[in-house]
Amino acid sequence: MPQYQDIARQLQARLDAGEFPPGSKLPSVRQLAARHGVNSLTALAAYRWLEQKQRVVARPRAGFFAALPARAAGQAPARALPSPATLVDVDSRMSQLVALSASDVAVQLHMAEAHHSLYPAAELARRLQQTLLRQPELIGAYLPAAQHERLCAQLRQMAAGWQLDVGPDEILFCNGITEGISLALRHLTRPGDTVAVETPVYFGLLQTLAALGLKALEIPCTPDAGLSLEALEFALQYGPPVRCLVTVTNYQNPTGALMPDDNKKRLLALARRHGIAVIEDDVFGELYFGKRRPTPLKAWDRDGDVIYCASFTKSLAPSFRLGWLSGGRHHAALERLRASSSLVSPALLLGTLSDLLASGDYARISQRLRARLAEQMARVADAVLAAFPPGTRLRRPQGGLLLWVEGPEGLDSARLLEAALKESISFAPGMLFSAEPRFRHCLRLNFGQPWDAAQQAAIARLGRLAAEQLRMT
Amino acid sequence: MPQYQDIARQLQARLDAGEFPPGSKLPSVRQLAARHGVNSLTALAAYRWLEQKQRVVARPRAGFFAALPARAAGQAPARALPSPATLVDVDSRMSQLVALSASDVAVQLHMAEAHHSLYPAAELARRLQQTLLRQPELIGAYLPAAQHERLCAQLRQMAAGWQLDVGPDEILFCNGITEGISLALRHLTRPGDTVAVETPVYFGLLQTLAALGLKALEIPCTPDAGLSLEALEFALQYGPPVRCLVTVTNYQNPTGALMPDDNKKRLLALARRHGIAVIEDDVFGELYFGKRRPTPLKAWDRDGDVIYCASFTKSLAPSFRLGWLSGGRHHAALERLRASSSLVSPALLLGTLSDLLASGDYARISQRLRARLAEQMARVADAVLAAFPPGTRLRRPQGGLLLWVEGPEGLDSARLLEAALKESISFAPGMLFSAEPRFRHCLRLNFGQPWDAAQQAAIARLGRLAAEQLRMT
Repeated sequence: MPQYQDIARQLQARLDAGEFPPGSKLPSVRQLAARHGVNSLTALAAYRWLEQKQRVVARPRAGFFAALPARAAGQAPARALPSPATLVDVDSRMSQLVALSASDVAVQLHMAEAHHSLYPAAELARRLQQTLLRQPELIGAYLPAAQHERLCAQLRQMAAGWQLDVGPDEILFCNGITEGISLALRHLTRPGDTVAVETPVYFGLLQTLAALGLKALEIPCTPDAGLSLEALEFALQYGPPVRCLVTVTNYQNPTGALMPDDNKKRLLALARRHGIAVIEDDVFGELYFGKRRPTPLKAWDRDGDVIYCASFTKSLAPSFRLGWLSGGRHHAALERLRASSSLVSPALLLGTLSDLLASGDYARISQRLRARLAEQMARVADAVLAAFPPGTRLRRPQGGLLLWVEGPEGLDSARLLEAALKESISFAPGMLFSAEPRFRHCLRLNFGQPWDAAQQAAIARLGRLAAEQLRMT
Repeated sequence: MPQYQDIARQLQARLDAGEFPPGSKLPSVRQLAARHGVNSLTALAAYRWLEQKQRVVARPRAGFFAALPARAAGQAPARALPSPATLVDVDSRMSQLVALSASDVAVQLHMAEAHHSLYPAAELARRLQQTLLRQPELIGAYLPAAQHERLCAQLRQMAAGWQLDVGPDEILFCNGITEGISLALRHLTRPGDTVAVETPVYFGLLQTLAALGLKALEIPCTPDAGLSLEALEFALQYGPPVRCLVTVTNYQNPTGALMPDDNKKRLLALARRHGIAVIEDDVFGELYFGKRRPTPLKAWDRDGDVIYCASFTKSLAPSFRLGWLSGGRHHAALERLRASSSLVSPALLLGTLSDLLASGDYARISQRLRARLAEQMARVADAVLAAFPPGTRLRRPQGGLLLWVEGPEGLDSARLLEAALKESISFAPGMLFSAEPRFRHCLRLNFGQPWDAAQQAAIARLGRLAAEQLRMT
């Protein structure tokens, strides 16, 4: 038996004996190594082995923890409501939130999605049929070269409208923006590397980092201006070596922040000075409420440092999972990595997108969606301010799907969620958005649901529950 | 500057100075380490750095090579015909073959696909529209839980028909089988690990292994019985430690081999005895020509050792990219990895598949396709035997899309491809299917194209070109 397995089995025996209750912190890699007189790599291998067996869980920058008991066989996980305690496990936050979507919660405000009724399903159904009848070759695996070139030219023209100049060979389609960001991280990093992210940050990104064995370095981000460049500069100067930065520049998840253009330019210069690559997540950029779509960071990237990731998921049809990226000087490598990871995107969906862009239908569909979202945002924000206890703050986002609510100090949004779920109301508690115990008093609300009386009542109820909790403490 | 970067820059200077011409072998990691008085990890880091900069290329079990010159800016790669020399680069074989598909080659026999006209595009277009009109919620990102359960129940019933018992929570959809296999490898291995594969082997798998920093251990595979268990046993006993095995049990790519049921059972016992996991690639299993669909290896897997990967790509609609896997004891971990890599598959396509399974249309569509393919296989095989020089051998496959032709000793199929491309005929030369210089005299032909006079003439011409080449040598 290899030495690391021997160590792993000894630790497993201690887990079995109850020496470390589920969820408790385990010895550090260094401690484990010292105990067995081996080097850290061997101790780490033991932990990785136990991790594969799902006996331990790794958390970025926190170490290893005893895993929660495996779910009983036969139990349908999609039906079970997650308790706030299981939401802490970074490795499964997203899956838990998805499970919440599949549950019977009546008023669901926990997602980062617009309701399906906001998308023109019947129109898209017709368009899909027309496209495939006219171009039966789209049933094949590969988008024919001429159509690929046409679609790339359309995207380049679209991006040029918001000052983003994309090269002719610099567009790669992928399965949702999640795949784009995952590919970018896989290309730029090796396990153990540190990646700078915003805090609060989309929990799915923490999950992706954990799956790749990466450490998250959380840089403060405010609803007003997004990522704090001052904090980033400080971290790059005095913190651990950072391999790359992932930033949501437009309508950040969860704060809704729009990074000012000046900050975008400064961020680029800062990244260049410190030699770090930037992964720009622009998944919400198309959902702008103002007159002008915001310009991505990538627009000022002259040196190919930025891997720009975007998507039609939010603005056209979530079901299509039409993400794309432009990888700068990493582009060719990302193309190869994508080919070996999932080969290609569905040719039919790409062909349909091309038809929708050519006809102007995409512009019309996304414009209508933006108008709906802007209105719903105003309703939700008004309702929150009317219902929540004094000291509650929010900033109305200029786009996107998400409203970040900062409750009064002392509010425990995880406990609030517990109470809300009993009344069939869901939201995303602040604790989800950091690996550290921050944002306990915050909530992320989705304003992508059609505004109605039930939603109004639900937000009023949330406000009262918050007030009650504060009175009792 | 970190030491590895210093070493990398020195090596880069030597590359710039022309000391190592493009394509030439570079010093081994050990040699490089010795030269600079560092350990092997540091030397390896230097190579990885240069690999990221696309100055060097890693080849499994062969080491590092000087990269070919970067392609000129503005050159449209999809249009360029690959020369056999560039096909050798394992890291881009698949991309090169895809490029060949996008070219104007008249008779294309190089792919592993059926022609798009063999799939019922109009019927599928209608079905897509109907499904989305009836269930507009499928425009959303997530397949609703009830529909997910229905689809899983359908797949379980289908699999039970070929003796495969899949648990209720053991189905994970993914973007084509490529994603399934990539996820399985990412879960089971760490960079540097050795993975057993068949030889000849699908070049896309070599590309996936290279992208993950894995080494391929090639185990002989014959058209008659597939993977040689004797060779595998020998390799497991005397070869380097193997982390897992990837095997195409039914109608292997490229040999078309069907592994006998007895061998499947023995393989499972062998894997268990040596403690290695098995990734079963059953992408061609639905394309059987006989009365009965072959049973996967997974059917006899009582301990959850096998990660079973399958797909509707070949048998229903390549464009849909509807892969799925059943991960045995690795299933939960694979679900998490998938969520962090690309989240979900397009809900609309999953919903349409469910409708096609419920109506019996899938059974009818795939049955018709199988009948067409069986007929085309017979035509292509007859034509090859009639046209190729004496000494040419082939075994008619019992399913799939691929015919493996072993030419007479001395045939150079890479040179044959060069001559064939001049006459607008393509095929996949044997050299593609191993990282070692094997199978030079072999060709893989696709019989997924509708049989016609042009194809008949093309195969006759290929045969004459082969005979000419042999006469000249």
